[in-house]
Amino acid sequence: MVDGVDLLMSLTVNGARLNDSLLELAGIGATPGGGVTRLAVSDEDRAGRDLLRSWMEQAGLTVLVDDFGNMTGLRRGTTDEPPVLLGSHCDSVVNGGKFDGALGVLGALEVVRTLNDHGIVTRRPVAIVNWTNEEGVRFEPAMQCSGAVTGRFSRSEVYGRTDRRGLRFEDELRGIGYLGEEANRPLPASAYLELHIEQGPVLEAAGYPVGIVGGIVGITWIEVTIEGQPDHAGPSPMGLRHDALAAAAQIVSGVERLALDLDEVAVATVGRLSVEPNVINTIPGRVTFSVDFRHPDRDVLEAQVVRLESLVADVATARGVRATVERFWTSEPTPFDRNVIGAVEHAVAELGLPSYTLWSGAGHDAKYLADVCPSGMIFVRSQGGLSHCEAEHSTPEDIEAGANVLLLSTLALAGVEIQ
Amino acid sequence: MVDGVDLLMSLTVNGARLNDSLLELAGIGATPGGGVTRLAVSDEDRAGRDLLRSWMEQAGLTVLVDDFGNMTGLRRGTTDEPPVLLGSHCDSVVNGGKFDGALGVLGALEVVRTLNDHGIVTRRPVAIVNWTNEEGVRFEPAMQCSGAVTGRFSRSEVYGRTDRRGLRFEDELRGIGYLGEEANRPLPASAYLELHIEQGPVLEAAGYPVGIVGGIVGITWIEVTIEGQPDHAGPSPMGLRHDALAAAAQIVSGVERLALDLDEVAVATVGRLSVEPNVINTIPGRVTFSVDFRHPDRDVLEAQVVRLESLVADVATARGVRATVERFWTSEPTPFDRNVIGAVEHAVAELGLPSYTLWSGAGHDAKYLADVCPSGMIFVRSQGGLSHCEAEHSTPEDIEAGANVLLLSTLALAGVEIQ
Repeated sequence: MVDGVDLLMSLTVNGARLNDSLLELAGIGATPGGGVTRLAVSDEDRAGRDLLRSWMEQAGLTVLVDDFGNMTGLRRGTTDEPPVLLGSHCDSVVNGGKFDGALGVLGALEVVRTLNDHGIVTRRPVAIVNWTNEEGVRFEPAMQCSGAVTGRFSRSEVYGRTDRRGLRFEDELRGIGYLGEEANRPLPASAYLELHIEQGPVLEAAGYPVGIVGGIVGITWIEVTIEGQPDHAGPSPMGLRHDALAAAAQIVSGVERLALDLDEVAVATVGRLSVEPNVINTIPGRVTFSVDFRHPDRDVLEAQVVRLESLVADVATARGVRATVERFWTSEPTPFDRNVIGAVEHAVAELGLPSYTLWSGAGHDAKYLADVCPSGMIFVRSQGGLSHCEAEHSTPEDIEAGANVLLLSTLALAGVEIQ
Repeated sequence: MVDGVDLLMSLTVNGARLNDSLLELAGIGATPGGGVTRLAVSDEDRAGRDLLRSWMEQAGLTVLVDDFGNMTGLRRGTTDEPPVLLGSHCDSVVNGGKFDGALGVLGALEVVRTLNDHGIVTRRPVAIVNWTNEEGVRFEPAMQCSGAVTGRFSRSEVYGRTDRRGLRFEDELRGIGYLGEEANRPLPASAYLELHIEQGPVLEAAGYPVGIVGGIVGITWIEVTIEGQPDHAGPSPMGLRHDALAAAAQIVSGVERLALDLDEVAVATVGRLSVEPNVINTIPGRVTFSVDFRHPDRDVLEAQVVRLESLVADVATARGVRATVERFWTSEPTPFDRNVIGAVEHAVAELGLPSYTLWSGAGHDAKYLADVCPSGMIFVRSQGGLSHCEAEHSTPEDIEAGANVLLLSTLALAGVEIQ
């Protein structure tokens, strides 16, 4: 670890202040059911940004808005090294939760406020960032503007995206007053660290307030099509049928088993399935369904696809149906940086919290940041594992614990000038 | 059997004439793909009826049209007993086949023509009937006008039915000139016999041209609803999921097994299934699907429903999902009359055809006729088991064989005056 940092390991954030700020931001776009609708580049997004800008300025940060609307608040260090970047996003889905995204931005703000409270000077600058359009609801895809500054998407591609009403991203971003300068992008960074709600039930089931994130799993999406023989449900004896849905049901069960039989982290989901002709008294002639495989290990992910192909072929042969397996999208696994994970582990230990590592099953801005700098994430327990809904919740205590992990990790990564 | 009939058992129909008539009728509403669209109470139906009326009159029959448009052609016998009624329907589905329904009406006409050719006088009258709207495509439900004259549906109920454009059945029937008199209904009858294509693959698989129909199976329709926990496909470990589709898949496989494990005639079909939210990366939260059970034995059908309820409850408990099973429609099994079946069996034997009995998995006008008089059916082999499609086909030889069975059965049921 960095010199002198251990002396500061008893420092803690102001949990009440953080939770107050989270609730104040959640008032912008608040829904009757206790959630938030604050779509990227909307009037609510503008209002949230304006509030964040005022808080950044009150904390003495230099506020920079880049050509994708990403907002950075920079706190100088004693060196010109690239900053330790902390952040997440303030946009939400429709009827989303109060903390998804906002926790990472306001947790970072609380880290800065705490450094200010104690007059702590870091060697590297500390910067906080609010990435534009992480959710990808109004303008696809998700993680759009972290992807843009890390080279995943071109500027023309992002600018030209339209919402359902045909409005262009660039025009709408300019319209809310947050189309800034390329020079204001928050990169390069010496490290990136993102605090986020887990959005899953693992920490709750394990009984831990925070989790150390090992990386973001790889995902592959597959479309399976089964073509059997549509027929009247009455006059066709069971032994002469080629029922596409009976075949699909066998494969859906097999897909679940592929994950259950593998290890504790593998997941496999059939989320979408449609039947033709979908008539009560007709044997289904055609069924299409999706398979979503996720795993931290690329080789294991590949092996799952091979197992699926074999399963589908066996079922098709046994039942006399035709089947195709089309793999149409893959996101490779993203293991986080060893040193960043080490800083988080050390912080967790210093705080006397249980050390528990899990992988993120969903994408986050940190996935793209990992392309360009050492990156990591900290998860905070989600009640009931719920997210993207109004009932999403994390307790003030868990939020405070997560922010303390972020604070101590930041001190380790930025280095402190002992005065 | 009836006196003197054995002497006539070498009588046969004119197969070429029958097949010619079938093809001539199939020219009305002919589709480019070789099928027929002749919806009930349409202009094509009117044209088909006009042709049938002319053929009936040429055969010396008294043509009667009743208050539901059912057309009867009556051939007198030597007694005033109720007639032996032979028939089926001339309406079709959209892009249906040439022989579904038409075979039973024109097969009956060919029986009358053959009796005329040989100057045969029967004791009981022989009547042929063309039931209105068996298919129930334009006006629901199916078997509408055989149901009306047998007391299943009231006249006001049938008359008030509307098609998709809001046109009333009664008005449309009057419009094509086939709204007749209640006094012209074809009932009572001493027996009812219907020749029909099988619409299934059983006779083809067995290698038999015709089948003796034991009855019409009972059918029960059930809606199963599974409510699990919708969640992100990524962050939810397999062990913590309550996946409604995984539960449904297990039940769909179990439903198939319920029929396979029972006997050779039980069938079970999940024809309709829908998933919510039906999104590739969301664990399904709700799945609804239909179950269609069919069996000749009412008690066995009831037992299948109980087994399904037990299966659903077991899966729901094991997976922590909520499930409901709603049985919403049942059509009781209809065993045909022993004497009518005996007449058909005797005819099959006299013709040297293989004797093979099967149950109808689908509904036919004979189901409702069985409520009011001794009834039976004869099936003709369907190529590929196909029906309700342009590719529906039965060979001229099989059609002739079926008509000969109808002829000899009719002689047995009507009785012949040996002169």
